[in-house]
Formats: sequence, C-alpha cells, structure tokens
Amino acid sequence: MQDPPAEIGCPFDQIDTPALILDLDAFDRNVAKMAAYAASVGVGLRAHAKTHKSSEVARRQMEAGAVGQCVQKVGEAEALVSGGIRDILVSNQVVADAKLDRLAAIASHARIGLCFDHPEQVLAASRAASRAGVTINGFVEIDVGMGRCGVAPGRAAADLANRIADAPGLRFEGLQAYHGRAQHLPTAPEREAAIRGAIQAVQQTREALGVAGLSASTVSGAGTGTFRIEAESGVYTELQAGSYAFMDLDYAAISGSDGRPYAEFEHSLFVLSAVISFAGAGWCVVDAGLKSYSGEKGPPRVHGREGYKFLGMSDEHGKIALSDDAQPPRLGDKVALIPGHCDPTINLHDWYVGVRSGVVHELWRIDARGASR
Amino acid sequence: MQDPPAEIGCPFDQIDTPALILDLDAFDRNVAKMAAYAASVGVGLRAHAKTHKSSEVARRQMEAGAVGQCVQKVGEAEALVSGGIRDILVSNQVVADAKLDRLAAIASHARIGLCFDHPEQVLAASRAASRAGVTINGFVEIDVGMGRCGVAPGRAAADLANRIADAPGLRFEGLQAYHGRAQHLPTAPEREAAIRGAIQAVQQTREALGVAGLSASTVSGAGTGTFRIEAESGVYTELQAGSYAFMDLDYAAISGSDGRPYAEFEHSLFVLSAVISFAGAGWCVVDAGLKSYSGEKGPPRVHGREGYKFLGMSDEHGKIALSDDAQPPRLGDKVALIPGHCDPTINLHDWYVGVRSGVVHELWRIDARGASR
Repeated sequence: MQDPPAEIGCPFDQIDTPALILDLDAFDRNVAKMAAYAASVGVGLRAHAKTHKSSEVARRQMEAGAVGQCVQKVGEAEALVSGGIRDILVSNQVVADAKLDRLAAIASHARIGLCFDHPEQVLAASRAASRAGVTINGFVEIDVGMGRCGVAPGRAAADLANRIADAPGLRFEGLQAYHGRAQHLPTAPEREAAIRGAIQAVQQTREALGVAGLSASTVSGAGTGTFRIEAESGVYTELQAGSYAFMDLDYAAISGSDGRPYAEFEHSLFVLSAVISFAGAGWCVVDAGLKSYSGEKGPPRVHGREGYKFLGMSDEHGKIALSDDAQPPRLGDKVALIPGHCDPTINLHDWYVGVRSGVVHELWRIDARGASR
Repeated sequence: MQDPPAEIGCPFDQIDTPALILDLDAFDRNVAKMAAYAASVGVGLRAHAKTHKSSEVARRQMEAGAVGQCVQKVGEAEALVSGGIRDILVSNQVVADAKLDRLAAIASHARIGLCFDHPEQVLAASRAASRAGVTINGFVEIDVGMGRCGVAPGRAAADLANRIADAPGLRFEGLQAYHGRAQHLPTAPEREAAIRGAIQAVQQTREALGVAGLSASTVSGAGTGTFRIEAESGVYTELQAGSYAFMDLDYAAISGSDGRPYAEFEHSLFVLSAVISFAGAGWCVVDAGLKSYSGEKGPPRVHGREGYKFLGMSDEHGKIALSDDAQPPRLGDKVALIPGHCDPTINLHDWYVGVRSGVVHELWRIDARGASR
C-alpha cells in the first residue's frame, strides 16, 4: 500500500500527484440525494461497494440511510466487515470452496446474501454454511436482458429457488435482477424500454415462485443510469447503484429524460495530475496515465481549464492539447481529470483525498483495492 | 496489499483466481534472449521496471546481464533500491521539490539518472542534489518523433545539456531518445522508418553537443518492438525494453520483419480466471474483469482452449463465447487469459504467481504496484 499523497490540512495545490481526489461537498450531495430519493419511494438503497472499494465510503452511505452494501467479491465483503458493515449482498456467483468458506466465516459477523444461477453453486454454498454453522441468504440471479450471468426468468428461477430453500445453511431471500447493459444506453427511452423488460422478467418470476409456494422478500437491482425506473416499478425493493456517489464520463455521456446530458449527480471524483513537460509546441504533458485512471471507456477529460483538451494517454503520461487562448502551463501546475470509468479507476488507488474548501479534510483508505478474489 | 493467491507447491489448477501467472520457463527464455542479444551487439540492457513493477523481476534481469533498470516514477526507483538495485534511470521528467528530495535521498545508495526537457527542472534537481550532497546523472530527453516529452534535437538539446553540465549536484551523462509511438507501428518497415528518424535526431544532437564541447556517454532508448534497430544503429548505447519479458496482445498484433506475427518473445504472462457461470446459452462467464486486466487495448484472449472466444469485459466479469464444438465448461474451470497490455495489467496485482511444470514455484511481490508518485 502506498502512503497518502497529502496530509490533513494540506492546501489543494500542494497535494502530491497523481492523487485520487474526492470533492467532499459534491460527494455528500450525491450520497444524500440518492438516500433521500430511495426513502421517498420506499425502497432500500444497497449501495455497490465494487465502485468505491472502501469501508469509509460505505459507512457514510449507511449513515445517510443505506440499508446495506453490495459487493462482487468475497475479498470486498471481508474488507467491509472489518470496517464495521453488517449487511452485505454478494451480487455475484462465488465458485470455489475456499472462497465460500471465507464467506461463511464472515456470515457469523454480518448478514450475508449470495447469488446463484446453478444448482452446484447452491450445494457448495450449503456445505460451506453448514461447516461454519451459519445461514447465508440465497438470491436467484435472473438474466433480465443483460446476457451475462443469471438463469432464465420464470420456472427455471423458481426451480433454483426451491433448491436454495431446501438447502441446509441457506435461506431463500429473493431475486438478483440487475440489468447492467441498460445503465449506459444513450437515451432515457432506450433505458426505460430495457428496464420495462427487466420488470416483466421479475413479475414473471414472482408468479412462478408463487406457484412453487415461495416468495421473494427482496428484489435487488438497478444502477445509476436507471434507478428511478426500478424504484418506481413496484417490484424492486432494493437499489444497487454505486457510481452515483462519484459520476464519471461514461455516465455523463448518456442523456437524461429531458434529452440533455445526464445530470442526476455531480462529478465528485477526480484524478489530480501535474504538468511535467511543455517542451512540445501546442501541448503539455501531465504525470497521470493508465496506472492512475482506467482507459477502456476512453481518455479522461480536463476539468476547469479553458482551452485544455485531453489528447492521449499512455502508461504514466497524459498529453493535453492547448488552444491558442489557453493559459500557458507552468511546470507543476495541477490539472484535475474526470475519469472515463470510476470503478476501475478507484481500484488503482490506495487513498481518497477528500477536499473541502480547497483544503484536504479527509484521507480514506481504499481498503478493498485489489480485493478481486 | 492482498495475500498471494497460492502457496509454493500448489498445483496450477488449485491457484485461487483471479491471479497473475508467470510461466517461468517462457519468462526465463525471454529474459535470456534479450540479454544475450544485447551482449552480442555490445549495448547495455536497461530493462524497464514500469512494466514489471517488481524488484524480484529486476534482480533476475540484472543476474542475466542487464546493466540497470529504467523507471518512470520516483516511487518505482525507491522500491527498486529497497530491493537491492543499484543503477536506475528515471526515464521521465520529475517535477516537485518533494519528489526530487526523495530521489536525491536514494542517490546515496544507487547510481541515479534523471531526464530533463526544461531549464527549470534542471535548477530544481540541482538544488535537491546539493541539499542531499549527492550527484544525479542528467539526461537530456529529445523528442525523436514521439510527440510527448523532450526538447527538439540539435542545438536546443545541447543548450540544455550545457545547463546540466554547469549545475551543482548534476553531471551530464547523455540522451534519452525513446520513440514510444514507433513500438506498436503495425509493420516492420514502418517501425524501421520511424527509428531511422530517431537515429538521425540523435546524430544531429551529438554533433551539436560536440560543438558545445560536450559528449553523450550514454544514449538510451528503444523498446520491445524496435530494439534491434536502435541496438545496431551505432548511436544508441542502451536498450529500455520492458514488455519483452512478458509479451501481450498489443505486441502480438504487430508483424515482424518476415511479415508474420511478431514472435521475438513468448507470452509468459497470463491472468488466470475461473468459470463462475454458464447459465446463458452459448457462453460462459469468468471471474476476471477490468480490475484484473487492463482493457484500453481491447479485451484479453483466451489461451489454450479451442472454441473459447473472449466476447466482453466488465468490472469483475469476462464473457466468453463457446463454439458448438468447444469442450463444455464446468464451474471452477480455470481459464488463462493473455492481457491486451502488460504494463497496466501487472499494476493491478500484488503478486506474480510463478509456475513451472504445472506447480507454483515462485511468489514474487509486485512491490512497486501503485507507486505512481
């Protein structure tokens, strides 16, 4: 783990670079807005820790009213439990006895949910829970149109739910019904249509569960791009949004229901870089590259500097074009970048540097960084 | 830092996933081949640690005959010095007094080189070296066609070399003349033409240095895609290749001088994943996504499994299409992936799991992971 790039009280322009910066005012507003919305609609907010990777962020989401956290990996769940979080859904399949034993070990300290899409997974988790003497809450993941994990909605899902209900050490709790591909569809009508299909899939599965004498007390899904649709569907009980706390260019690129750029949440997350070279004519180079932000959704965008346009990213460099009327850079000038994709960007860093009123106010460990197992 | 995903002696198919796997036989052959080539031509191999991020790898490259290591960041240099490496070139500009003080601090334990492309950088490094009572070897970076950092070849470079030579605490050693953009040009003639331009730029600068009464004892550059051209140029004295030890899809996509896929080196680096779902028709899902490999050069490729074609990557998942004649997957099946780009992929992991004859033989810490400052 690297040392933090600043100390508490450090002025913004003296933060060492590259650094992952959190605008605490914007972050607080994002967290409060989603929590208030979920409360107003009467659904639970189960914020996704795969995005933030930090029990410090999780605690703030919980304090604001979240009912729990989602994770994708057992290692993330372990970090959250160490950080005091007591209600966690692994919104993913976990395969391997050693991983299931680790999950069962923390199930005596926290309420743990786990998703399934195959009977063998159910048997293995049942054995692990029984070995540890704990109960794990089982969710059937249904494929609501994403085309990744999940059984078909309806009868197949009810069959798997029955197996969970019958398995020692497991308790059938509900459905995982997340439509990831819908989150970034460019327009609101496209996202609406996709989620309407997901809602139908959930309804169809609920009916099949009823025939089997079961019911889903929890239906979990939704993300930052579509959360209002699931929340107001009457069938989803939990929202799994994660990016809402930070935003990124990928979400900024979709349009809202008014046809304008999606502005439900504010950019609170930045990679702070510094100018290390302007020897070339018409550009400067900053010290943050692909090891400081994730590039698969395209390059980051320069924040708050007129005439600075991000041109190219390499491993440790960002190249920025300067327009004729741009303020000429000086060596060491700080340049804030908005990353293309927040989740894998955060996973590159060990610390959030929380800034308020131009001063470092918080240093939060990203304690689940690299916890991919 | 995460725990290692296996113990020494663990059979390959019991390694926890995702894991960064090193085929030690292939790695050894790559390391030996480049070292032998450099020795045969009479140039120094200064392997680039920005790729491997590990003093364990550096030590093996040094044992095989490398004259030193390159880094891009002071944090990488610190990790290497802690790991016993005693000859390091920072092939980059370093801006900020705090960083320069850290670099000067290790210059009493190792021979340190540093690149410049602006007089202010020279002054700042001179002050830091003087404060610490050390000497730093100064390199003028020239832009040989890459269009990133570096002064113009010729007179401008000689002027900056003069400033270095005159600065207390600095010693003018030579030229940084790396052409990064040339490395991945698709065909050998294109790479050859680009590097011919770089060689001319070096020659022109050497002449200007001579007029100024200076000479470059070291000219450092070259990468895995072009190293033979620089090595045989008569003007380069050092090779800075890094990817050669591992290979990746980005280098596998270029063609060699015979017009066939570039095969100077073997793929030794893999991300090991496991099948966690095959509920969908025609595909399976593995547990390694964008937090286990870098995606900006495209998705990874499945290694050694007929009929498995990588389709899509998300944060924690890889989706793999299965042809009709593919062996049907079972839950937990291990699937090795060749990453698109080795450098940012390695930076996601804390350990190399070194495998020989199907068994884990080595666990090497990636001690400069995240050392981006």
